[in-house]
Parts: sequence; structure tokens; C-alpha cells
Amino acid sequence: MAVDMTDLGKRTKAAAKILAKAPTDQKNKALLGLAGILGKDRQPILDANAGDVSAAGAAGLAPGLIDRLTLTPARLDGIAADLRKVIDLPDPVGERYDESTRPNGLHLWRQRVPLGVLGVIYESRPNVTVDVAGLAIKTGNAAILRGGSETIHSNRALVAAVHTALRAADLPEDSVLFVDDPDRARVTELLALDEWVDMIIPRGGGSLHRFCREHSRISVITGGVGICHLYVEQSADQTRSIEVIHNAKTKRPSVCNALDTVLVERAAAAEFLPMVVARLEKDGVTFRAHENALPFLGNPLPASVQAAGPEDFDTEWMALILGLKVVDTLEEAIEHIALHSQNHSDGILTENRDHAARFLAEVDSAAVYVNASTHFTDGAQFGLGAEVAISTQRLHARGPMGLRELTTYKWAAEGDYLIRA
Amino acid sequence: MAVDMTDLGKRTKAAAKILAKAPTDQKNKALLGLAGILGKDRQPILDANAGDVSAAGAAGLAPGLIDRLTLTPARLDGIAADLRKVIDLPDPVGERYDESTRPNGLHLWRQRVPLGVLGVIYESRPNVTVDVAGLAIKTGNAAILRGGSETIHSNRALVAAVHTALRAADLPEDSVLFVDDPDRARVTELLALDEWVDMIIPRGGGSLHRFCREHSRISVITGGVGICHLYVEQSADQTRSIEVIHNAKTKRPSVCNALDTVLVERAAAAEFLPMVVARLEKDGVTFRAHENALPFLGNPLPASVQAAGPEDFDTEWMALILGLKVVDTLEEAIEHIALHSQNHSDGILTENRDHAARFLAEVDSAAVYVNASTHFTDGAQFGLGAEVAISTQRLHARGPMGLRELTTYKWAAEGDYLIRA
Repeated sequence: MAVDMTDLGKRTKAAAKILAKAPTDQKNKALLGLAGILGKDRQPILDANAGDVSAAGAAGLAPGLIDRLTLTPARLDGIAADLRKVIDLPDPVGERYDESTRPNGLHLWRQRVPLGVLGVIYESRPNVTVDVAGLAIKTGNAAILRGGSETIHSNRALVAAVHTALRAADLPEDSVLFVDDPDRARVTELLALDEWVDMIIPRGGGSLHRFCREHSRISVITGGVGICHLYVEQSADQTRSIEVIHNAKTKRPSVCNALDTVLVERAAAAEFLPMVVARLEKDGVTFRAHENALPFLGNPLPASVQAAGPEDFDTEWMALILGLKVVDTLEEAIEHIALHSQNHSDGILTENRDHAARFLAEVDSAAVYVNASTHFTDGAQFGLGAEVAISTQRLHARGPMGLRELTTYKWAAEGDYLIRA
Repeated sequence: MAVDMTDLGKRTKAAAKILAKAPTDQKNKALLGLAGILGKDRQPILDANAGDVSAAGAAGLAPGLIDRLTLTPARLDGIAADLRKVIDLPDPVGERYDESTRPNGLHLWRQRVPLGVLGVIYESRPNVTVDVAGLAIKTGNAAILRGGSETIHSNRALVAAVHTALRAADLPEDSVLFVDDPDRARVTELLALDEWVDMIIPRGGGSLHRFCREHSRISVITGGVGICHLYVEQSADQTRSIEVIHNAKTKRPSVCNALDTVLVERAAAAEFLPMVVARLEKDGVTFRAHENALPFLGNPLPASVQAAGPEDFDTEWMALILGLKVVDTLEEAIEHIALHSQNHSDGILTENRDHAARFLAEVDSAAVYVNASTHFTDGAQFGLGAEVAISTQRLHARGPMGLRELTTYKWAAEGDYLIRA
């Protein structure tokens, strides 16, 4: 039977009101209880996941995808450890800031409060179910979770564990509800629940983000897609620059902060481009070189290099592939990035302080770097402790979204029967 | 000929890139130039406005509406004075905050940057044209302005003045573009320009906000509608409470922070309700009393009091009308507000500190008050210096939106050829 999404919306909204008032200790108790279940009472979760894994095998899913949806005791231990880290993070709810007393005596401050209800739409990895549930509970937000159909049994078991933990902490089970229905029509219905849901967080590729943006009446956190650039100037330390490029490309090529394109200042191209190829091809990287970079790469070209096609500089590779292009000036580098970046993470490698400052000022991305790897764009790396998403949109939050970015604020004011003159 | 909205989108986006880099002095020079034109070279503006006023008279508009769209030398002086206040406000663009150095040596901070392009949709008052242009320029944002058709000649002349001032400051005229076309189809087209416009700000009534929310692919700042409450407890100083109620209701009844409903604790009702009626009816206020309040108001009822109808507690009065209702407990007051408030401004009058704290924590409005008038919800009153809108939504900004709320941030980071371990 189809899940009634309106019912889910009403129930999470009602739960959100209770959760918003819950003290930190009570929310942490639920998280600790959940971590305990994942560590000790996990057989039902592992059994449910085994069902998903065998169904995925029967359906002929690629081994990489099957690996993504597989839970093991060690992976559950890792998820539980992440939950314990969230317990240790400060609770943003209730924090006062911008406090002042106006000349008329009005005592005024902003006070952080939960957003309300989060709608989270994601794909295969079942760890997202626990990560999001944990971050939502910690920040006093209720959540409606819509995971991928290929992990529906795992998610059902994981949400049952969340409910057990909520109940044991005297918090409403409806704080975290799961769309237990693989029909894609439920996604469209979720996006229309603007009366009850306050924010939509898609976690997946560009097509999921576009779908949400086009069909949602609720604010959508757009992100998850990065075409990331590093621009190398002649003044840079070339040996160290190559290690930064190597890190940004190869450390974890399948994530959105991985490097996609290297731009090289023309004066450095003859020396630098062959060095990049030599260093990175050893680790399996192949290259798509702009026609202006080809003359610097040898004749015949190394086997790892091919001429770039028309779409290559607009492609997020998610793989050990790297675009190479020569630019004449800083301006041309900034212009290339403006045209091709998804405004995620872009950087410059240089010893020229003026150019570094101009790059930071003029490149309009969620994270901009001088002499550092784009792979740093991450909530934990930025000291946020955890991350629910990386936003590449402009409103509300930009870049890694931690606990604070899952809150809003209210203005609170006190007077002595104060009237406005 | 129909205005090409895509062309407007592209032109403002291009101008926004230049404006985003403009130093504070250059932006202030444009504002100062505009203030000068409004003060000295204003005859073309007054002439254009006279055309709108006579057309409005011929069309039979109500005198109150004609007054709203009329510009006089004194009103232009007031608009110019407001611009000069904006010049004196600090420029939020470029501000660094949350600066830190991570254990690995990554130097990291958030840096305020303009949002990009604002789409502002408003109704009759032509002063909004200058207010919004001034706040946009100051914050480095470009803007597309869509004013009411009844002020199209005034707005054309005012935007010409804006362009003159921008040109004199060497800033692109396209920083502020005006939809010089009264066809309502242009509004729908504006709401679809998600490729170029970053935020939609409707300034008008609830129906305009709903229209924008339902038709926009761009984030909309919802607000402008307030059904505001004050809850009076027996413990409150009753004489002073009445002055707060009087201020919140009568100071400016047509604005969104004006009081709509007074809730009175039952134990205080017999004494307090007749005092409220006696004090406010002298200034022309009439009352809509819930059936549970009627017994406290005399028999026969005063001429100013009538029984409330079914919609009255869901009506934003915008007039000298006040709802009255008795509640038994704080919980019942909070519950009434949760059902009927538009989450704008709500307050409690009490000497009970526990109740005050619970009210502040549990009433989920953009501004919550203890012993103060709801009429304080205003950018200038809150020390923001100016205000582009009052948001009642939860994401990005809540309550009065000043200069800072017209910005976003980027993460900037510097390392010494730093790689992620």
C-alpha cells in the first residue's frame, strides 16, 4: 500500500515541536542508545542488509554498487563511532548571539532554533540513514528519510533501531520517519509537503539535484556536484604543486571535492605539464589535454594523454581522469573557472600574493584555496565536526553544512513594558 | 514591445560580477550621487509622478492609494536622507569571520560576498524603488525591479536617476534594471530566471507571497504578513500592559508588526478586558471578542465591541481592529498562537520569569517579546540600520533583513602547498 506522505509530514511536524524543546542530554541519550544497538544488537540489521545484498546480486548490480550498500560489523562499528563523535559536538540549539541592548532599553538577541523538518533524499549507501538521523536528532530537527529502493530492507531495520533509541530516551519515534515505499511518486509528493517540511537535502548526483529543484515547493540545498580546478602559476613551487595536484586528484577520486582540471600558466607549461603527467600516470591517472596543452606533452603523446573533447571541461570525472589546459593570464584562469566550475572548490598555486588575493576575491565558489588541495572541502576538515551536505547554492549555507547550518534563529527581546516612540 | 526578461537576467548577472568587486567608496559614491539627484535634479521625477497621480485619479483609485504613490519634494528629501543613512552603514562585503587555523596548518575563514542578483517585486510605493536600489548597490548586489503598473512613470524616472548615479561612479548601469512593462506575464518570467537571479523578494500582501512561492524556481523570501499576538498574564503590571497594547495596535496599524489579537489570562480578564476597551476605543479601535471574552465586557456590550466571527482570529487587520480572547493557561496561549500566528511577532506581558522564558522558547515566531510592543520588529529598531524585508520563513534569514542578510559567504583557505592526509 502506498505510504501516505501527508501523514508522514504531519507526524514529523508534531514530533519536531517536541524535539525542538528537548534538552541536549536527552538528545545525546538517544544517539548513545542508537550507537549501542549498532554495536551490540545489530544482527537484525545485518540480516536485513544481507537480503538487500543478495537481491542486488540477483539484479546484476555492479560489484562497486553492491559494495556501497553492504554493511559489515566493522562498518557498523564505524557508523557507531561517528555517532559518538556527534554526541561530543556542542549542541547549537539555544545559543544566543548578536546580543545587545538598544538605546531605548530593549534587550535583544538572536537565538538558534532548529529548522523544523528535514526531507532527505539519497541513494544507495545505508550509512546515510544513521548519519542523517543522528545529525537531525542532535540539532532538534525531525526528518523524513527517503533512501534508495535497493537498500529498503537495511533502511527499515536501521530506522527501527533509531525508533528503539528514541523511545528509550523518551523522544517521539516520529522524529525520524522512513518512506517505506520504493515508488518514485513518493519523492515528488515529498517535494510538495511545503506545509510540513522546511528543507530538502538531496544527496546524490546532478540529476537528483535538478529534479528536486524543479519539482520542489520547499527550499532545496543544491550541491554535491563539483568540477574542481587548480590553477598553477610559474611562481609556484612546482615540485610541491604537483603533490597538491596528486592529492586533490587521487586521494578519493569519486567525491565531489576531487580535482577535475589543472590550468597552467603558459610560462610554466613546458616544464610543468610533463611533470604532472609523469607523476600522476604512475598512479593510473589519464589526461584530457586541451589543444593548447598538447604541444607541451611530447610527440608522440604519452599513452596516458588524449586530446580533450568538447564536453570534457564540463565533466565531473569522479574517476582517475584529469583535464589539462594552458592559460595566458590570471584573468583567463578566473574566466575559465567562471565558465566551467560548479562553484564547489577551486584553488590557485602561486607565490604571487596579489594574484592569490585576487583569486580568493574573484572566484565565486563555495570554497576557494591558495596553495592547498581542493580535497579539504569537508565538514570535519573545516572543523565543523560533521557534515550533512556540501552546498553549492548561495542562500542559507554555502560549502560544508554542519550542525549550525541545520538551525535557524529567532529574534528574542525583553523590555520593561517598552513601547516604540 | 514586451521586455525580454532573459536579456535582463543576463545583463544584471554580468553587472553583478563587476559590482561584487567594487570598493565601498565607489558604491557610496553612487548612493551619494543618487541622493543628490533626488534633492536637486528632481523635477523630471516629480513630473513623471504627477502623470501617475493623475492617471490614478482618472482610474478612480482610492485617495489612500493615491497618497501612497505620490512623491513630493519633502518625500524625496526623506528618501534621500534614508540613502545617506545607508552610506554611513558599514559595508558587509569582504568581512572575514569564523577565522581559524586547523591543526594541519590550514588557515581558514568565512568571507562575506554579495548574493548576486535580487529580483524584487513590489506594489504601489515608488520609494521602494530607491530603497531597494540603494541597499542592493551598497551590498554589491545587482537587482531587477518590478514595481506596480500604477507607478510605472515614476519608477522609470527614478531608475533613470539611479543609472545617472551609477554612471557617475563608474559602475555599470545594468546593476539596477527595471521591468518597464506592466504585463503581469513578466512577473512569472522573472520567477523562472533561476539561471541569473539568486533571490526573489516580494514586498506586498499574502497573495503576492503565495504567488511567488508557488511559481518560483528561485528561493523566495516569504514574509510581510503578521497576525501578531500579545498574551497578558495576571502577574503583569496591568496599567503599563495597556500602554504596550495601545502602542502595538495604534502606532501604525497598517504595518505587518501591528497587533491583531490580545489573549488575556482568565484570572485577569474581569479587570483587564474592560480597561483595554476603555483605553483603546478612545482612539478609534473596535474589538472582535471571542465568546469567552464577551461576558467580561458588559451587558449591553460597548458599541466598539462585537462578537468575533469564525475567521477573525486568522485575519491580519491592517486597521484599528483588535481581537480579544480569554485563555486559561500559558499553554493555551502558546497553542492559540501556534494555530493562528503567521510566525512574525508575538509577545507575553508578565512578571513570571518562568513563563517569560517558556514563551520565548516555545513560541516559534521570527520575533518573540517579553514586556515589549510587537511594533519593534523593524530593521532600524533592531540596530540593522536599514531593512529590505521582514522574513517569516526559516531559511537564510528570519525577521528584519538588513545589509548582512543580503550577503552570503564563501570559505577561503590558505596553506603551504598543503595536502590532505
